[in-house]
Amino acid sequence: MKKLIIASTSTVHGSKYLEYILPELKSFFAEVDEILFVPYARAGGLTHDEYTAIAQEGFKKINKKVRGIHTFTDPVVAVQNAGAIFVGGGNTFLLVTMLYNHNLMEVIRRAVLDGTPYLGTSAGSNITGLTMQTTNDMPIVYPPSFKTLGLVPFNINPHYLDPVEGSKHMGETREMRIKEFHKINTQPVVGIREGSWLAVEGDKIILKGDLPARIFECNNAPYELSPGSEVRCK
Amino acid sequence: MKKLIIASTSTVHGSKYLEYILPELKSFFAEVDEILFVPYARAGGLTHDEYTAIAQEGFKKINKKVRGIHTFTDPVVAVQNAGAIFVGGGNTFLLVTMLYNHNLMEVIRRAVLDGTPYLGTSAGSNITGLTMQTTNDMPIVYPPSFKTLGLVPFNINPHYLDPVEGSKHMGETREMRIKEFHKINTQPVVGIREGSWLAVEGDKIILKGDLPARIFECNNAPYELSPGSEVRCK
Repeated sequence: MKKLIIASTSTVHGSKYLEYILPELKSFFAEVDEILFVPYARAGGLTHDEYTAIAQEGFKKINKKVRGIHTFTDPVVAVQNAGAIFVGGGNTFLLVTMLYNHNLMEVIRRAVLDGTPYLGTSAGSNITGLTMQTTNDMPIVYPPSFKTLGLVPFNINPHYLDPVEGSKHMGETREMRIKEFHKINTQPVVGIREGSWLAVEGDKIILKGDLPARIFECNNAPYELSPGSEVRCK
Repeated sequence: MKKLIIASTSTVHGSKYLEYILPELKSFFAEVDEILFVPYARAGGLTHDEYTAIAQEGFKKINKKVRGIHTFTDPVVAVQNAGAIFVGGGNTFLLVTMLYNHNLMEVIRRAVLDGTPYLGTSAGSNITGLTMQTTNDMPIVYPPSFKTLGLVPFNINPHYLDPVEGSKHMGETREMRIKEFHKINTQPVVGIREGSWLAVEGDKIILKGDLPARIFECNNAPYELSPGSEVRCK
């Protein structure tokens, strides 16, 4: 049975890396000692080793070992043998390009469908959807496709942001961008606010955290979904 | 000699469509009566006819006729015969896809190099750069390439936004996104704030409007460029 945590962000303001979600991760990863970390999304500043060290620091508090996929000779085998997978945030265009270049997209999908627990934050959450087309990121690299893991039957918009009241900026709000997406695409979009996550067990998808999510369905008005509710968008 | 106006936005807060830039447009388009309008970027709400009507309304105040490219049987011939071109804003992924699908990218580039005056706003400005990879837009459609007109020797970031002081949002700031771009790409990026524009005459590129632009060069610290200055980034 597939098991995922799809988190809007790794870090909430004023708190340490993963800290806000550690109680959930402790039970989610109860059965595993080591987690395979995918640092590929990181474009700026940190090396894959440095990014993995941050993930390790976060998981130390619940006694989990983290190993970066870049340290394996064969990343495909690394995924196939992993007890659990964590795909971190960064730039979604870069992440998707790296996953395709290393032939990992289908391999990760298959592993999760076969029951390997999957944690995603930000870009790592974005790719659990049908396509990466509701990312907020800049297209810094041209991926072979926008198609992603399709482990949930909708698209994700992480770091969902409400329109800023009284803003004089004329650029599109997040809601306007998602409406534009729906002029061309039909799948629903789940906007997850920072500090919230989706807990997936088989076909059951529950919104967790303190904040509601915003659900955008093609041809319907967007609506708020309360924490604790099941996501049943169509 | 190529002549372009590359504007951050069509509309500044509290003012009508194109109103802030009409004095500049009056002299820029002094020699032409009719402007070919490219409404392809528009994804939400408006039809191409409705969007063209808005452009016409804006240009009425300086007595210019506007005709939408979608009303011509052959858009390639429409560009080749145009006295002037205006590419409006919307979604850059959609605009670039439409331009490639209609075989217009090279045709517009050639027309502008041959002297057809070009006005871009927002997405229409983004595509004057080397690539569309510093757009702020959502990837609502997969374009055949990210390569754009290359009429200036850098990339454009329209609607440039400074970091919001005291924000608790953990998503990337615009500056962080452009730094990520420079981890993979080397061309400079000119961040144009709303109300500013670049006036291009041949190889001379002057920043106009009231606000400075923010210049990002690969491996250098970003800096501010004052209005009235020549853009000479490298």
